[in-house]
Amino acid sequence: MTDSFSFQITATDGTARTGAIFTPRGEIRTPAFMPVGTAATVKGMYPEQVRATGADILLGNTYHLMLRPGAERIAKLGGLHKFMGWERPILTDSGGFQVMSLSGLRKITEEGVTFRSHVDGAMHAMSPERSVEIQGLLGADIQMQLDECVRLPCEDAEAERAMRLSLRWAERSKTAFELQPKGRALFGIVQGGAVPRLRVESARALADMDFPGYSIGGLAVGEPQEVMLAMIETVEPHLPAAKPRYLMGVGTPDDLLEAVGRGIDMFDCVMPTRSGRHALAFTRFGKVNLKNARHQDDPRPLDETSDCPALRDYSRAYLHHLIRCEEMLGSMLLTWANLHYYQDLMRGMRAAIAAGTFADFKAATKEGWARGDIAPYAA
Amino acid sequence: MTDSFSFQITATDGTARTGAIFTPRGEIRTPAFMPVGTAATVKGMYPEQVRATGADILLGNTYHLMLRPGAERIAKLGGLHKFMGWERPILTDSGGFQVMSLSGLRKITEEGVTFRSHVDGAMHAMSPERSVEIQGLLGADIQMQLDECVRLPCEDAEAERAMRLSLRWAERSKTAFELQPKGRALFGIVQGGAVPRLRVESARALADMDFPGYSIGGLAVGEPQEVMLAMIETVEPHLPAAKPRYLMGVGTPDDLLEAVGRGIDMFDCVMPTRSGRHALAFTRFGKVNLKNARHQDDPRPLDETSDCPALRDYSRAYLHHLIRCEEMLGSMLLTWANLHYYQDLMRGMRAAIAAGTFADFKAATKEGWARGDIAPYAA
Repeated sequence: MTDSFSFQITATDGTARTGAIFTPRGEIRTPAFMPVGTAATVKGMYPEQVRATGADILLGNTYHLMLRPGAERIAKLGGLHKFMGWERPILTDSGGFQVMSLSGLRKITEEGVTFRSHVDGAMHAMSPERSVEIQGLLGADIQMQLDECVRLPCEDAEAERAMRLSLRWAERSKTAFELQPKGRALFGIVQGGAVPRLRVESARALADMDFPGYSIGGLAVGEPQEVMLAMIETVEPHLPAAKPRYLMGVGTPDDLLEAVGRGIDMFDCVMPTRSGRHALAFTRFGKVNLKNARHQDDPRPLDETSDCPALRDYSRAYLHHLIRCEEMLGSMLLTWANLHYYQDLMRGMRAAIAAGTFADFKAATKEGWARGDIAPYAA
Repeated sequence: MTDSFSFQITATDGTARTGAIFTPRGEIRTPAFMPVGTAATVKGMYPEQVRATGADILLGNTYHLMLRPGAERIAKLGGLHKFMGWERPILTDSGGFQVMSLSGLRKITEEGVTFRSHVDGAMHAMSPERSVEIQGLLGADIQMQLDECVRLPCEDAEAERAMRLSLRWAERSKTAFELQPKGRALFGIVQGGAVPRLRVESARALADMDFPGYSIGGLAVGEPQEVMLAMIETVEPHLPAAKPRYLMGVGTPDDLLEAVGRGIDMFDCVMPTRSGRHALAFTRFGKVNLKNARHQDDPRPLDETSDCPALRDYSRAYLHHLIRCEEMLGSMLLTWANLHYYQDLMRGMRAAIAAGTFADFKAATKEGWARGDIAPYAA
């Protein structure tokens, strides 16, 4: 254990890197996928189960937690880790993204953003300082600066305005963060829409501020995968190589493979959990839609070679039945299976980078997905 | 392990008895509480978790399973135990009760009952023979005869008609059941509404047919607890002492205490699972409604002395938060806690009967409930 925040790269393979982030609450093996625990719970999972899939760190949503049950309440109860029964590292977003996408009536000024809660309609104010304060009350190990994230596509001028505002908020966030205990980290967030020169300007300005880690925000917001990957390639050379890089809100298993190959160290996404609640399983054979009637008589599990009970011990026929009957256990099992598969993919990537075989691993993994699901079941 | 079905009473204390039912799929310690796994799943629980609470046997609902995914389909997939990942004993009801309470447009004749599925509106026919056939296809270890259960209060003549029909169906069920493998058991069901002479007639007639076990049906259908307990007292002397007695669809923790004291060996009820999904916890301090705002700042778990993680490891504040946000984990944890408490209660009763201290155990348990929840939390 350490009392400070640090990052160590143990191997590289092309632009891809593997290593670990060290925090007082434990080590985060990178590249890392962070399951999303929006309202202080990874939906449908017990905390120990999430850990057993191989997750080293969770993400909590500041916007949701500040509204319910409230940051001050969580602080009084001993912080988010204790509240939700997860003693390992937690990363929180700034709340900005959800304010923009979920809340009603919102107004952005130089000072910050005021918005109406989607829960009870109450008005709230969020500034860079308040966002950092809330994340501190939650006790987050890795925190995000407040930024303004624009939807893509958007006008260059709009992307530029939001990027510049985000840079000024980065400075204010950094100052506010100095009040917090040692061992925590605040990440700056690269913005700039899909405009390379804006992305480069943002990355350079943030690098000059010397953050302990850098996020790439404003991607996976509707643009094609090529645009996202091009933006990562644009930004990557301008981020300090020795600091972790977090691609926010990404993505599909394919996005993870491609982004790790371009030097990304951290990810979060609701995809494995949300898809699990909607009958979709991610496996080494690709996506399997358990709603499909072709599974109704199939006695085979999703992946008999897996060491995850959700993938190994329940037939497709049973999973199909649970989903058809809208049984909780269907969502529970597919969420579990998906989180396990995502962590398996990260384990595979880390091992491949360490062995210098990332390209082979990537090709073999994509081949598995492309071959598709196992043969149709013949009764 | 045994290849036949048998019941052994190891101790009695007044009318209360403790012992075990032996089946080829394992032993069922009595008095036993059977969690309800309506659609081949105990809602919100993994099968191993249900087992870990101390459940020796589950109940499956024939009506639900025959409609989705279908008895023939489950048989082709290897039976209900394999389908739902529960290798220990399973009891199925006859389907009759749900036909009466859930399906649309139904018609009862001497032959059986025809009804419209609540799922897709399709017409189905259920006879005593078909009910036993379906339960056989599911592979149930303990099966129920088809009966007609009347709502209380009802006219004596109506109760008498339904009871006599149920007796004729008992004979037909018994004959149909002879086709099934050794080691399974079919129970006859005592009916007769709230009319003592009808209940006695039903019990005696069934006893003459020599079933391996006897159910008491048509109770807990709206009548006061006193009426239910009086009916148990009326029936009990007329049931063969050496055979297990199952009180169907009961009940609250208090019902269980009272009925065990009157010689009942088996119970099933949706109360612990359904209540768990509706924010209500059963504990040794009585009922706790986690929806109540008084829990929102309370760092204490439901029962810090429990060996169940759901009762011991999560604060009331967290449970309240999960329920308020309608998070799955709230239902999962309270269902788990309730099933654990119900099994704890059964364990306590079995031990007390064995020790000859059932009256003390009953008094102490009720005292715990009456003292109520722990003191309000003062922040």
